[in-house]
Amino acid sequence: MGSLDNERTTTGWAARDPSGVLSPYTYSLRNTGPEDLYIKVLCCGICHSDIHQVKNDLGMSHYPMVPGHEVVGEVLEVGSDVTKYKVGDRVGTGIVVGCCRSCEPCKSEQEQYCNKKIWNYNDVYTDGKPTQGGFAGEVVVDQRFVVKIPDGLESEQAAPLMCAAVTVYSPLVHFGFKQSGLRGGILGLGGVGHMGVKIAKAMGHHVTVISSSDKKRKEALEHLGADAYLVSSDENGMKEAADSLDYIFDTIPVVHPLEPYLALLKLDGKLILTGVINAPLQFVSPMVMLGRKSITGSFIGSIKEMEEMLEFCKDKELTSQIEVVKMDYVNTALERLEKNDVRYRFVVDVAGSKLDGSV
Amino acid sequence: MGSLDNERTTTGWAARDPSGVLSPYTYSLRNTGPEDLYIKVLCCGICHSDIHQVKNDLGMSHYPMVPGHEVVGEVLEVGSDVTKYKVGDRVGTGIVVGCCRSCEPCKSEQEQYCNKKIWNYNDVYTDGKPTQGGFAGEVVVDQRFVVKIPDGLESEQAAPLMCAAVTVYSPLVHFGFKQSGLRGGILGLGGVGHMGVKIAKAMGHHVTVISSSDKKRKEALEHLGADAYLVSSDENGMKEAADSLDYIFDTIPVVHPLEPYLALLKLDGKLILTGVINAPLQFVSPMVMLGRKSITGSFIGSIKEMEEMLEFCKDKELTSQIEVVKMDYVNTALERLEKNDVRYRFVVDVAGSKLDGSV
Repeated sequence: MGSLDNERTTTGWAARDPSGVLSPYTYSLRNTGPEDLYIKVLCCGICHSDIHQVKNDLGMSHYPMVPGHEVVGEVLEVGSDVTKYKVGDRVGTGIVVGCCRSCEPCKSEQEQYCNKKIWNYNDVYTDGKPTQGGFAGEVVVDQRFVVKIPDGLESEQAAPLMCAAVTVYSPLVHFGFKQSGLRGGILGLGGVGHMGVKIAKAMGHHVTVISSSDKKRKEALEHLGADAYLVSSDENGMKEAADSLDYIFDTIPVVHPLEPYLALLKLDGKLILTGVINAPLQFVSPMVMLGRKSITGSFIGSIKEMEEMLEFCKDKELTSQIEVVKMDYVNTALERLEKNDVRYRFVVDVAGSKLDGSV
Repeated sequence: MGSLDNERTTTGWAARDPSGVLSPYTYSLRNTGPEDLYIKVLCCGICHSDIHQVKNDLGMSHYPMVPGHEVVGEVLEVGSDVTKYKVGDRVGTGIVVGCCRSCEPCKSEQEQYCNKKIWNYNDVYTDGKPTQGGFAGEVVVDQRFVVKIPDGLESEQAAPLMCAAVTVYSPLVHFGFKQSGLRGGILGLGGVGHMGVKIAKAMGHHVTVISSSDKKRKEALEHLGADAYLVSSDENGMKEAADSLDYIFDTIPVVHPLEPYLALLKLDGKLILTGVINAPLQFVSPMVMLGRKSITGSFIGSIKEMEEMLEFCKDKELTSQIEVVKMDYVNTALERLEKNDVRYRFVVDVAGSKLDGSV
């Protein structure tokens, strides 16, 4: 471990085929380059897009694949040119681990929109080797794609912030919604949705949770602090809420109609898609034209926004609601997540798990 | 004509059923109220949405229906409270002739987005009577929904500005695109599209016309002054143009795929729909997420924007390219427009036509 001369290895949990079942897998890790951090993984959240990847839902999966992109770890070693981090620091890293550094998005510190970005797993790194994710003992990441976890924020708490929280925080800031008094909607109460309620509330918004059933009403209102709860099949409720929202986060990861939600937006309102959906969505043109509404989307956030978001969460004492599991539970967790049977994010205690599969 | 006591009538050309064929129709016009202008129609442009309306494509048509919402006329009489206009003034009026005056859009002078707006035809006015459009001898319009046509702008030239031009001008201003150096795309070279090229060029943009065939290349580049011409089936050309445009005006009035055009937009680019399409459009979510692109739309413009736009067009000596016809040609014109066989807007010389059907 930590040798700069010999190839080093780590053990993670990898999918081997589109069944998406994870099992122990040992592979080599690059040595710590001048700009690299060698990081011991402490914990890693499970995001719905991990399911799309391990099951090849998008037709772009390569195996073996170690998923996981909500990573919090401890720095074991720093490269010769690393100045910002030191051994022992607690850091987070997410879905982007490389970018071209010369395109417009890169030059404006919005590297998540670089067309040559490198994904932290199911991609190929600059050395030609496959990238592998956070369900592993260690990762090596360029310092450019790492954030410091503020003291006082627990590692398990911080993990879902690396993706679920910044996915909401970034577009709120970008679209000019980081001001109090706005009215927002959260469609879908999963990992991203529950962070959406919390972050929007922390920004001082009136937040309506929109759901297909009444099941989560109490939870949304009493536990997460939402101001209103709307069942999409409730025609009167939907009619009364028409033209009332500045934005809606649409976090539903499967195909669904957009018109009922577009109708809830006021003039210039935005429907912000955050879930990769593997089939086309539909809408009729007057629904956007006659209110200058936008259907848009957002993809995680930049490293700069992650730093801001972590400070924001710390300042507002905002926590994510998680269920911490060991690695040997990860396949059950993926199954439960697919059924939306988790409140609201699984986080794998990687450092506390035996990664070789022994019990 | 002009009596305040007896019911007065006018003759227009109305559709009687979804065949959409227009023929002479005589109906009553309200007397000139305190805020009203009684206007002799000089000319009226033909917009593609007139076809949707007369043919009941949207399932909301009432007959008899006199279409036409690109109206230029001369004031014959003004109401007692009218101060802004006087008899003899040349004025324009468009698709909106009433609004609630108390909602957010109304209070912010964006009355075209009022949910209680009254359409200038195929709607019901505050007096309970059907509204009728500009293919008629006279119209009565509240002064709030009228603009003065600047001296030096010909009436026939001004007519298409009431809808086609403001449809482009308004979103360019609203979305922050009224600055030079941007790169825009115009998809569909009809009435709105050709004004799009001219207005975007006048704002100092680099303009690409995107078309399904090579047919209009010479016209677009040499005649309208576009900078580039892209055929959507040209895979290499489309690939080279990927991520290059700040916005695209999508003026195609029929169902079409959106992905090829979303791919042309750069980070934060906007696809602006201006055509009412009577069937759903489709897109896949990563196409908006991985570039924070927006699918949006815009609906004509406010009276305030119309005034600005008319001054802009006059200052820039910007003209619309039109084919002027008499009223007895209107059915042929509608047929030709449906086949996109016009460069680029028909304008009916209403004052120069015999409206009773005599030849």
